Amino acid sequence: MDTRTGLPVVGMVGGGQLARMTHQAAISLGQSLRVLSESPDDSAALVAADVRIGTHTDLAALREFAKGCEAVTFDHEHVPTEHIEALEAEGVKIFPGSGALVFAQDKGMMRERLAALKAPVPRWRRVNDISDMSEIGWPVVAKATRGGYDGRGVWVLDDEKAAAELIATGTPLIVEEKVALKRELAALVARSPFGQVAAYPVVETVQKDGICVEVLAPAPGLPEDLAVQAQQLAIDLANALGVVGLLAVELFETDEGIVVNELAMRPHNSGHWTIEGARTSQFEQHLRAVLDYPMGETSLTAPAVVMANVLGGAPGGISIDERLHHLFAEDPGARVHLYGKQVRPGRKIGHVTVLGDDMTSVRARAARAARWLQEGA
Amino acid sequence: MDTRTGLPVVGMVGGGQLARMTHQAAISLGQSLRVLSESPDDSAALVAADVRIGTHTDLAALREFAKGCEAVTFDHEHVPTEHIEALEAEGVKIFPGSGALVFAQDKGMMRERLAALKAPVPRWRRVNDISDMSEIGWPVVAKATRGGYDGRGVWVLDDEKAAAELIATGTPLIVEEKVALKRELAALVARSPFGQVAAYPVVETVQKDGICVEVLAPAPGLPEDLAVQAQQLAIDLANALGVVGLLAVELFETDEGIVVNELAMRPHNSGHWTIEGARTSQFEQHLRAVLDYPMGETSLTAPAVVMANVLGGAPGGISIDERLHHLFAEDPGARVHLYGKQVRPGRKIGHVTVLGDDMTSVRARAARAARWLQEGA
Repeated sequence: MDTRTGLPVVGMVGGGQLARMTHQAAISLGQSLRVLSESPDDSAALVAADVRIGTHTDLAALREFAKGCEAVTFDHEHVPTEHIEALEAEGVKIFPGSGALVFAQDKGMMRERLAALKAPVPRWRRVNDISDMSEIGWPVVAKATRGGYDGRGVWVLDDEKAAAELIATGTPLIVEEKVALKRELAALVARSPFGQVAAYPVVETVQKDGICVEVLAPAPGLPEDLAVQAQQLAIDLANALGVVGLLAVELFETDEGIVVNELAMRPHNSGHWTIEGARTSQFEQHLRAVLDYPMGETSLTAPAVVMANVLGGAPGGISIDERLHHLFAEDPGARVHLYGKQVRPGRKIGHVTVLGDDMTSVRARAARAARWLQEGA
Repeated sequence: MDTRTGLPVVGMVGGGQLARMTHQAAISLGQSLRVLSESPDDSAALVAADVRIGTHTDLAALREFAKGCEAVTFDHEHVPTEHIEALEAEGVKIFPGSGALVFAQDKGMMRERLAALKAPVPRWRRVNDISDMSEIGWPVVAKATRGGYDGRGVWVLDDEKAAAELIATGTPLIVEEKVALKRELAALVARSPFGQVAAYPVVETVQKDGICVEVLAPAPGLPEDLAVQAQQLAIDLANALGVVGLLAVELFETDEGIVVNELAMRPHNSGHWTIEGARTSQFEQHLRAVLDYPMGETSLTAPAVVMANVLGGAPGGISIDERLHHLFAEDPGARVHLYGKQVRPGRKIGHVTVLGDDMTSVRARAARAARWLQEGA
């Protein structure tokens, strides 16, 4: 507890934009997020008051960081499982716990556990040799079991030759069928240690080159029964895996229904729209969950909400500050979130959210706003 | 400019809750608010990354603070006019400028200027001796020309005896008629150096013992012509006084129309509802104004929005953290803002905002939520 305020201290490992936006939410709750950041120039470190410099692979740094925190949680999934176990053994309240987080860290374990829970998953194998791939049938999707994100660590392989090259790198892999998907969805829930689970409306996520570019809330035209099924699946998984905090279940919608693609156990890009688009943002909800506060309302604040990511464009051209001037003149209702990151091509440097009554026009506005910030010239 | 982000640096003098919430808004714009705070335990200093310790009456501290800021602005009105003038002479962009701010600092000058602009004001006098008061007719409202807030520096005087006692203290005073008011309203606008002015919907403010306890947005039952008149008055005053940033015009509604009570030139308690209740919060709007960005949309996000202040209750009883647990269980849709301040009876320690379709029920929920946080036991 912070003795100056009488309110709890939450520590977040990692100084990226998720920690940045979680700090923003913490301020409303009377808190100040403690951030473990690799560099003082990281996105969250630029704005938080209580920043400790250190790396998530350093157990001593994690241990020191956790002192005085009511709860420790994560901006990413890269903290070694054994470090989390060590902290848990020492009595640190760290959420999600090692027993849950491992299913977001290791795709092989995730697939095995989901199969055991009879959750809908694509056909898959752990890859020992090339026969595991050819059994699935070409083309296949190969994934590194650990460490991938934003399209990294995922390969679509058309034939044995490409597969052999990847296997030769020695990366531990799983392989999945290339699902004939209609689109991608995400179901976001939050679960507290008490066991309360709150579910957000199911959204559509639009990917380009493996990176999420747009999120549409609620998922347009999604049949009610499928929406309820997706929410229930996320609730069941949160309970079965013992998740504390947010759980984002990334889904493929196919002709036969939904299948689970990935799990994330932290505030997630598919939930950024909740800052303005839901009564309680995912960032506040995550804090409430890890502190075992009752969950906040998850309903939409407008009939149509679209979040569009702002990706770094080509170097040069007009500055981000000038682009912001132009965007604000162009669309006074666009809600901008910039992460304070150096622009690199393809890097997520911010997002824009637009709310309204009509999904088609809201989507067009959000896409235009994101493009405006990205390219500008 | 912050070279790490390519985005501007705004400095805010004063480390109270207004700076705290402005920092929260700055984060979305890719910025990190620089705060000049008297103590590291001040509300904003607890959450901001770029905190300088110093006092607003120290010109050297102000000068050092302003270095590298694109714009300097205020959390309160207490910076000496001559210090602002000195900084302006040195080329610091400080908003509102001394020429405007003085009308929020000095009630005598404000009344004179408003009268010259033919704005509606109560009958008033500068107080030289008791005859200035008796001319107005008992009871009168006496106000210290400088330094009052939240009911401090304001006295209702019933007779000559009470008046004589106050005059004997030597405090420079103005005196006004005690207006037969139906209720209090506030018109909030923001103006940029370019001259763009954005107006928020006119709200009703409910006071108790001179402290604002509730704000209802929009002001229930306010005739459209009176709402437009109040907005136009605020726009005209912002232009005439050359305000840059926010201007809150506190108004009395009487049987004869509206009269101006007070002016504030900063984010204002009557605008806290805008965080969730308007497309652009007053805090972001203030930043956009002082940086000469185009203004954001000011429309309501729900038909009825109520902000209720949380005042410190009697010492003892259950802790603020426990009260928060109870409130979140009681009303999952209440939006809480705690300022990280030590509880003292009557001190504003936070606020709660509730949104909905029906003003009566929204107001009841907001009042209950604020009471819950205040007393709890």
